[in-house]
Amino acid sequence: MRVEIVAVGTELLLGQIPDTNSQWLGEQLAANGIASHFHQHVGDNHERIVLAFRTALARSDAVIVCGGLGPTQDDITRAALAEVMNAPLERHEDIVESIRKMFDSRGRTMPDNNLFQADVPRGASIIVQTRGTAPGLICPVGLKVVYAVPGVPYEMTDMFERAILPDLLARERAGGTTSVITSRVLRTWGASESALAEAVGERFEALSDDGRVTIAFLASGIEGIKVRITARGDDAEHARSLLENEELLVRRLISERFGDIIFGVDEETMEDAIASRLLERGLTLGVAESVTGGLIASRLVNIAGASKWFRGGVVSYASEVKFDLLGVAPGPVVSGDAAKAMATGVRRVLGSDIGLSVTGVAGPEEQDGQPAGTVFVGIAIGDDVEEVALRLPGDRPRIRSYSAISALDALRRALDRLG
Amino acid sequence: MRVEIVAVGTELLLGQIPDTNSQWLGEQLAANGIASHFHQHVGDNHERIVLAFRTALARSDAVIVCGGLGPTQDDITRAALAEVMNAPLERHEDIVESIRKMFDSRGRTMPDNNLFQADVPRGASIIVQTRGTAPGLICPVGLKVVYAVPGVPYEMTDMFERAILPDLLARERAGGTTSVITSRVLRTWGASESALAEAVGERFEALSDDGRVTIAFLASGIEGIKVRITARGDDAEHARSLLENEELLVRRLISERFGDIIFGVDEETMEDAIASRLLERGLTLGVAESVTGGLIASRLVNIAGASKWFRGGVVSYASEVKFDLLGVAPGPVVSGDAAKAMATGVRRVLGSDIGLSVTGVAGPEEQDGQPAGTVFVGIAIGDDVEEVALRLPGDRPRIRSYSAISALDALRRALDRLG
Repeated sequence: MRVEIVAVGTELLLGQIPDTNSQWLGEQLAANGIASHFHQHVGDNHERIVLAFRTALARSDAVIVCGGLGPTQDDITRAALAEVMNAPLERHEDIVESIRKMFDSRGRTMPDNNLFQADVPRGASIIVQTRGTAPGLICPVGLKVVYAVPGVPYEMTDMFERAILPDLLARERAGGTTSVITSRVLRTWGASESALAEAVGERFEALSDDGRVTIAFLASGIEGIKVRITARGDDAEHARSLLENEELLVRRLISERFGDIIFGVDEETMEDAIASRLLERGLTLGVAESVTGGLIASRLVNIAGASKWFRGGVVSYASEVKFDLLGVAPGPVVSGDAAKAMATGVRRVLGSDIGLSVTGVAGPEEQDGQPAGTVFVGIAIGDDVEEVALRLPGDRPRIRSYSAISALDALRRALDRLG
Repeated sequence: MRVEIVAVGTELLLGQIPDTNSQWLGEQLAANGIASHFHQHVGDNHERIVLAFRTALARSDAVIVCGGLGPTQDDITRAALAEVMNAPLERHEDIVESIRKMFDSRGRTMPDNNLFQADVPRGASIIVQTRGTAPGLICPVGLKVVYAVPGVPYEMTDMFERAILPDLLARERAGGTTSVITSRVLRTWGASESALAEAVGERFEALSDDGRVTIAFLASGIEGIKVRITARGDDAEHARSLLENEELLVRRLISERFGDIIFGVDEETMEDAIASRLLERGLTLGVAESVTGGLIASRLVNIAGASKWFRGGVVSYASEVKFDLLGVAPGPVVSGDAAKAMATGVRRVLGSDIGLSVTGVAGPEEQDGQPAGTVFVGIAIGDDVEEVALRLPGDRPRIRSYSAISALDALRRALDRLG
């Protein structure tokens, strides 16, 4: 079973947006042991889309098409599929009704253009929409199949998980399968990508001739530096056992060299690490942000159930807000003392158990005689107040991202010291 | 002249890294008026790379191959090129010497594996390396050409600018088919993608047989809904004139139907629109965020010079913070009255001229009897306070993004009404 991904959209060819869909789909297929040998990008042009589909069907067993199902005139995937299937497009009144209802529920009138989204090539089945207007399509072409989903990631991922993956796995089982690929990501904060690579260097050499297990490193900004271990086994059990053995060895090499820098696994973010520790201890948090400007708060509220432990925050961008609202003593606001006063102040103002603060210079200009990248974190837990001084690299957005994850990591360590 | 990009590497198929090379090359080709109709990703497998090259040569005039020129067993682009050219690989001793010198200069010994990087298919020319070890290749195949460059972005971009782009432009001139592509993005907020497409429908029909000008729509979350106009002219002047005429027509159709919904052009964000209006009027802003949790503040501080007009914000996530700090009357906190009180309160607490607030339900559960997607915006300018009620679609992160851009758009309109 070889699956090819075709992403449709002139904006991809012109480089106006990155193709995150093919990357996500590639990851999902690999994680489920489904082979994918080719990806294509093609623009919003009927003849070229048809050519891309025929190319994909000639060299792969199944094709996942992302994009071109929208309601506008440049959304022509449906017509191209009909041509490849040699079937007419037929309007489905039940789809028209469900789209109309979605508009009604938002108190709006459905534009006539959305009618096109109810056109389905004869012989195709529908993947019902739950998050947008365009349904997905499952189009048989001889013994092969083309799945078409919207290019909106939020709609695409849902349809993949709900309809395409189960269908692909059923086809694999029917055909008798081969190997399973599985992987795990260890998320770290506190060591550089090259230092991490050096620490696990001996594993690299041991693995290079094997090919069943691989290790890769990826610096991911506010998501930390990721260490990805991938194992290919004869079946799920074999793959999992290879992966678990390797993970143990890698974890040991990392902790021997750097201590407790692994904060999460796979999709676990630094915010998740904070949330679980606060919940466990029954503590509430308030944040005071200057250099990060609300970034920490906005990440924390993305955690479901944040209201159980998150009180809120103060973005004290103007110095007077630090002085008047948070009670910082007038003077330089990029300093350890200011960070500590902000943490104490926000704890008082918001009535939280813990106050976390960040103040610093995002640049490009220096401030208070401090160069860009100078950052101070303050942590107030009850009457204990500590400061952490940092020197971070990068431009404004990077200094902000690194400040946010560094502040949360400092809090993670402080919470662990509470026991 | 149609150029196809083929990115080689199993890590791309597995989704382990994003393909930033194809995106960058796509941008560069478009900026130079060179058409690109297809991209491909293929893994490190000889037969499949050969198949991808042959597919690309069948439907395009030139191919740029990124990756697979490194020194390891995975790097097999050279051998695949030799097969497609039907030519033997020959070792070039001058390349061996230059690679050896590069290792010497770093005080290291060249591993034998690097010898493979000196293998060149007979008939190919070399793009000399200045930043790494593997040279690039220019491989004629009949009247067509394949350019091969390393996958390391820093080496790839240098070779593209220094050797590939000049060669492509020379071929375009020789073929007499020079053209220049230019594009403009109009950013809108307040109409759906399908309603926008319907409004400019007559332009679509007028353009569909022409091909010189195209219009596309892209829903981009917090960045708004983008209308991209692309024009291909015989030269830069012609392309600009086509684009400007079309932009005038499209702007008129949009404003006739929806009023003032275009908030920016190209890279201008909604935050830029707010920043320029506040600066112009000499007003300062404070924000009170509940459902957006700091997202608005963190976007605003990304604008250089935000300290001139941005005072800061309060993230009032817990209801008590709304009551105690912002002075909201106890009661339901998802309401127009609460939004107005938050806007007035944050203006007082932060000492700003304007207070902007957002309160709402991000879901998935309802709150205060209101369903997910119910959002109220409050705007306090001096003693004038207004509320805007919204009903937004999507999951938690989308409701937050839409809330943020909707609140800023409401402020943009309120500032414009000030004159």
